[in-house]
Amino acid sequence: MGDVAQRLAEIVGESHLLTGDGIPEDYSGDEALTGTPTTPRYVVKPATAEEVAAVLTTASDHRIPVTARGSGTGLSAAAQPHPDGILVSFERMNAVLEIDTVNHVAVVQPGVTLSELDEKTASSGLGYTVYPGEMSASVGGNVGTNAGGMRAVKYGVTRNNVLGLQAVLPTGEIIRTGGKIVKTSTGYDLTQLIIGSEGTLALATEVIVKLHPRLRHGATVLAPFSDLDRVMAAVPAIVSSGLAPHILEYIDALTMAAITYNADLALGIPDEVRDASQAYLVVGLENRDAERLGGDTAELGELLTGLGAADVYVLEGTAARKLIEAREKAFWTAKSAGADDVIDVVVPRSAMPEFLSRSRELATKTESGVVGCGHAGDGNVHLAIFQKDKEKRASLLHDVFALGMELGGVISGEHGIGRAKKERFVELEDPAKVALLRRLKQAFDPAGILNPGVLFD
Amino acid sequence: MGDVAQRLAEIVGESHLLTGDGIPEDYSGDEALTGTPTTPRYVVKPATAEEVAAVLTTASDHRIPVTARGSGTGLSAAAQPHPDGILVSFERMNAVLEIDTVNHVAVVQPGVTLSELDEKTASSGLGYTVYPGEMSASVGGNVGTNAGGMRAVKYGVTRNNVLGLQAVLPTGEIIRTGGKIVKTSTGYDLTQLIIGSEGTLALATEVIVKLHPRLRHGATVLAPFSDLDRVMAAVPAIVSSGLAPHILEYIDALTMAAITYNADLALGIPDEVRDASQAYLVVGLENRDAERLGGDTAELGELLTGLGAADVYVLEGTAARKLIEAREKAFWTAKSAGADDVIDVVVPRSAMPEFLSRSRELATKTESGVVGCGHAGDGNVHLAIFQKDKEKRASLLHDVFALGMELGGVISGEHGIGRAKKERFVELEDPAKVALLRRLKQAFDPAGILNPGVLFD
Repeated sequence: MGDVAQRLAEIVGESHLLTGDGIPEDYSGDEALTGTPTTPRYVVKPATAEEVAAVLTTASDHRIPVTARGSGTGLSAAAQPHPDGILVSFERMNAVLEIDTVNHVAVVQPGVTLSELDEKTASSGLGYTVYPGEMSASVGGNVGTNAGGMRAVKYGVTRNNVLGLQAVLPTGEIIRTGGKIVKTSTGYDLTQLIIGSEGTLALATEVIVKLHPRLRHGATVLAPFSDLDRVMAAVPAIVSSGLAPHILEYIDALTMAAITYNADLALGIPDEVRDASQAYLVVGLENRDAERLGGDTAELGELLTGLGAADVYVLEGTAARKLIEAREKAFWTAKSAGADDVIDVVVPRSAMPEFLSRSRELATKTESGVVGCGHAGDGNVHLAIFQKDKEKRASLLHDVFALGMELGGVISGEHGIGRAKKERFVELEDPAKVALLRRLKQAFDPAGILNPGVLFD
Repeated sequence: MGDVAQRLAEIVGESHLLTGDGIPEDYSGDEALTGTPTTPRYVVKPATAEEVAAVLTTASDHRIPVTARGSGTGLSAAAQPHPDGILVSFERMNAVLEIDTVNHVAVVQPGVTLSELDEKTASSGLGYTVYPGEMSASVGGNVGTNAGGMRAVKYGVTRNNVLGLQAVLPTGEIIRTGGKIVKTSTGYDLTQLIIGSEGTLALATEVIVKLHPRLRHGATVLAPFSDLDRVMAAVPAIVSSGLAPHILEYIDALTMAAITYNADLALGIPDEVRDASQAYLVVGLENRDAERLGGDTAELGELLTGLGAADVYVLEGTAARKLIEAREKAFWTAKSAGADDVIDVVVPRSAMPEFLSRSRELATKTESGVVGCGHAGDGNVHLAIFQKDKEKRASLLHDVFALGMELGGVISGEHGIGRAKKERFVELEDPAKVALLRRLKQAFDPAGILNPGVLFD
């Protein structure tokens, strides 16, 4: 056993250090379709922030790359380890430390999954509102990517719902940022800087998340439209109405066919309506009062009809739940359909029709396929890319990302850059900004140990 | 005219450069009670981001301190210029560039005031929801301090309502961050890092702010309580109820007397109720529907009574507006009453009673007075400090800030650290964090020109 292994074993305990053939394949990457499975030299499973700090100090001393891993559900290969590096798996730091019903926060360790957090908060009448579509994802991983998901249209993304962190700096210090407070104007906001940094600046060892009252009554409304432009024109009208939907999704006809087929889901849409519909809008409403929900649902129906919906279906219990679940599993549907990549450009929502139609033109030009769905309220477009040839795909992605940026958007709304998109990111982003990001990285991590090769090289 | 003055005149035009006796007193500071009025060497009034960039490049070349100024309404002396420095006044960059009703954003220059933005958005049915209590404040200044205010309990603070920036780096580059989008996971979030940095990292030259639908119907409910503990116990119950108040303020008896006296405001509270009340809760509700608002108001009344309110008053039009305005002017009331400082510690809302009672004890020990009001929903406590002796006051502030931090809070919720609180900040904050903030400052501003002496020396 080498010096480093010896030291790591001392820190986390011998049974929580894996090396060589003792490392299961699962640790070799995340769910990014374009990742390169890579076995790290060491896997450590710390139990405390102090252990994480000791691991990072050791890594800094020996200049060993460190990659953090929550549940490994990321889509940008940010949790793909370095072959000479240490993978820090947070699987043992999986406790919900506190559910504070006075301040409406929960304090959790990074390895807690969203489904565990959901279960543990249920009886309090409060809940964590970030639903990136994969309930086995960890809170720590969500912090790393600034995860979003469907309910962001009402509740915001991870960065809007994390109030504070305990985090370990690559230099080994344990710091606390923010707190059980929603306001702070006391120095630069380190909480916000660490969120979305994909494990390159600091490792979160505790997360204070906001909880919201669970509204007891919900309805899911499905509206088919003849074309996507009409769907997009409907979105601002719905947002302006004050109905405050917590879900506002579009699904193109092909994706709808695929996800309903995969979920064995009958929506009761007559053939002639379905055949004439190129796109669907799914709107979720919720209220603490059943009667008000009924009023809102009726109002939404009238609004949708006025906006050109071919029909309006209020989905009941099982069908509604199944459709939302199927939509959340769209990634898996795309994967099983043989998609070669999935991307999640975000543009101003007014630019979605242009982004979609020009993306399709770009795809046609490279003989590729794109189908998709997305968070219509957010302008966050999820496209599955079908193109086996790596160079053609890289060129298509470059053009699609450039298009998104030209329209005022960014490359990724919630998946992150990771390893998967870093070449495109560095190529397309303003060099002055990339240079500044590198200086910030250097300010946190002078030895360059945290997730090198993620975001930029 | 020296070389620098010559160059600055070339950049902004001679008529937009002030020097020496040509600099009006107003530019010598902001509204911080403990500021030291200081005339800068130069005042420049740029008209474009390019002019700001040229000014910063000149300043970097000559290592001249630069302080940015919006409306000068700050309370932490962050806009107090350096005697050898350049004051960049954004008064000419005061255009609302765009009100985008599809994406629900406005794009504004930093010198736009909140009242101008409110007027210009009114006809769209949308509005900007950050109300720090001073409508002459500028959006750029709000970005600098991460301004909060009363409606933060529902709508969040500046950082939750700014989606993107155009900003000039001290090294002279003009960058754009974020956009008309609410999701991004594409590199470190520079928008969030610049917000609240009090002019020390970059100067915002354009701000993209979120707009929300204006809800047409509103009610203001006033509830006197026998003591502050009961007020505080009522707060989580109101938040949990799902009534989603947009205002949730407490006002202590002395502050209530002062602000109503100053505003010549009769609230119709019988003497015996007033005499038995040590604290008041003010709750604002709003709804797009008048009938629902009525229902909510009735429900709130019952809830408050059950929570121990001595009585419940639904304030009508003028009285309601006047009370909120008077509350917003609490700073001016404190100032005219001879307060020696005002502070705005934020603690978890559950810790407010303890923070307040122990703050009073600390004040008594140093023969000082503290009276206050605050954002009960946020745990943001505004205290007016009465203590003429500078050393005693510094010692009291140290102890009150330390108490706030001990209870899980931070020194300032919305006023910022500025020059006014930097000694206490550096003294009390974790040295590892201060060192990291200094490295971040260095990454943005290697020449150290932006607002030196603010946050830390």
